Amino acid sequence: MRIDGIATISETQSHDIAGKTVLVIDVLRATSVMAAALENGARQIIPVETVAQAKHIGVKEDVMTGERQCKKIPGFMLGNSPLEFSPQAVEGRRIVMTTTNGTRGIQKAVKGFAVIAASFLNAAACADAAAEIKKDIVILCAGTQDAFALEDGLCAGLLVKELRSRIEELRVNDFARSMELAYAAAEPKLAETLLACESGGKLSALGFREDVSYCAQVNALRVVPILKDGALRPYGKVAQSQY
Amino acid sequence: MRIDGIATISETQSHDIAGKTVLVIDVLRATSVMAAALENGARQIIPVETVAQAKHIGVKEDVMTGERQCKKIPGFMLGNSPLEFSPQAVEGRRIVMTTTNGTRGIQKAVKGFAVIAASFLNAAACADAAAEIKKDIVILCAGTQDAFALEDGLCAGLLVKELRSRIEELRVNDFARSMELAYAAAEPKLAETLLACESGGKLSALGFREDVSYCAQVNALRVVPILKDGALRPYGKVAQSQY
Repeated sequence: MRIDGIATISETQSHDIAGKTVLVIDVLRATSVMAAALENGARQIIPVETVAQAKHIGVKEDVMTGERQCKKIPGFMLGNSPLEFSPQAVEGRRIVMTTTNGTRGIQKAVKGFAVIAASFLNAAACADAAAEIKKDIVILCAGTQDAFALEDGLCAGLLVKELRSRIEELRVNDFARSMELAYAAAEPKLAETLLACESGGKLSALGFREDVSYCAQVNALRVVPILKDGALRPYGKVAQSQY
Repeated sequence: MRIDGIATISETQSHDIAGKTVLVIDVLRATSVMAAALENGARQIIPVETVAQAKHIGVKEDVMTGERQCKKIPGFMLGNSPLEFSPQAVEGRRIVMTTTNGTRGIQKAVKGFAVIAASFLNAAACADAAAEIKKDIVILCAGTQDAFALEDGLCAGLLVKELRSRIEELRVNDFARSMELAYAAAEPKLAETLLACESGGKLSALGFREDVSYCAQVNALRVVPILKDGALRPYGKVAQSQY
């Protein structure tokens, strides 16, 4: 089996994705939020690219969520902080979400055989699912405004590590291998490393330091958000025979 | 001072380069060859993009060198193996060189304030020069056919490490930071890691395993190839007042 890591959304081409299991990563914060929301009982998440699309799709029962420049979108119920997505806020609800990079990453991956939202929070669970699906794997780092983001790369490295323990005869491209090495060096001081990276520093300055610490928790959750008919739902509740 | 790492030539834009010291890396093998050639007494190296340009520029006293698909260009005197660039072959001579990625990387960097060919062989010496020049630094990984190459990334990581010990108050972008982490993990087994990466495996299969081991030597040489009027010469022989 192959693992190809891709450093940013803008480098991604359709032929990289087709037929593969795509693990989309936007650690700070969209894919961490997706895991937290489904873990806390949200029924499904509709990721969309624009605020206009979100407003078009959303009905009054939905939880409207997302950010622009890291801040909650005016009129929306929740922003993009995983700590907001409590059971009280999301249980049994449909979430409509638009963020700058993460939801765009999901859209970019939509031609994949399977599309999974991965983060530090649920990396081991995502690796279990990807190993079970048995397709070649693309790890797509969302990055930030088309630039590589360290937190996404390190999470890609963790995913490679987790996948190695589950899949024999793995071929890993150079980028994914470099991230595996980087994660090995960062692992003992992960939260500190995330707080010091570009997005982590920016979020801390905006008052979201706790979000960064939350998103740096490795394998704390078992939920795997997987895309089906335009919505992310927990893998396991989606018919597995399709994967 | 800033250090910005760039993962491939194709991501590089003129405004990233202008006014900066650009450390161009093509570990396997162009920038390693450049260091070896100048170390062994070559007078200067003219890096050009195409075989036609090389033939146009070259005169009969020149050493014509380069590769396509890792192999020597028909009719040229030397290929792209650093072991070929012995004092007997190059001392006192002008070298005209064209390779698939490395010379293209040098050309891409040409608008920099200073352009230096860096490799594992001369990383510490390149860091000394860049610290002395006192401009913001771009580390440009040549990569392979527009894809990220692990060996170039790891060398970028070594350069960040070397620069940190020379420059106070360094701001390092996320990509360069990730490579610094990756290098820290790879350092104890560098030659092995390079032999296992995509380019290293390909070169080994083509009979160039010794080249990979040679290029994995860290800080073995003190020469710093720097671009001036279209030619790479040893930093120190080029008037330093200009930098």
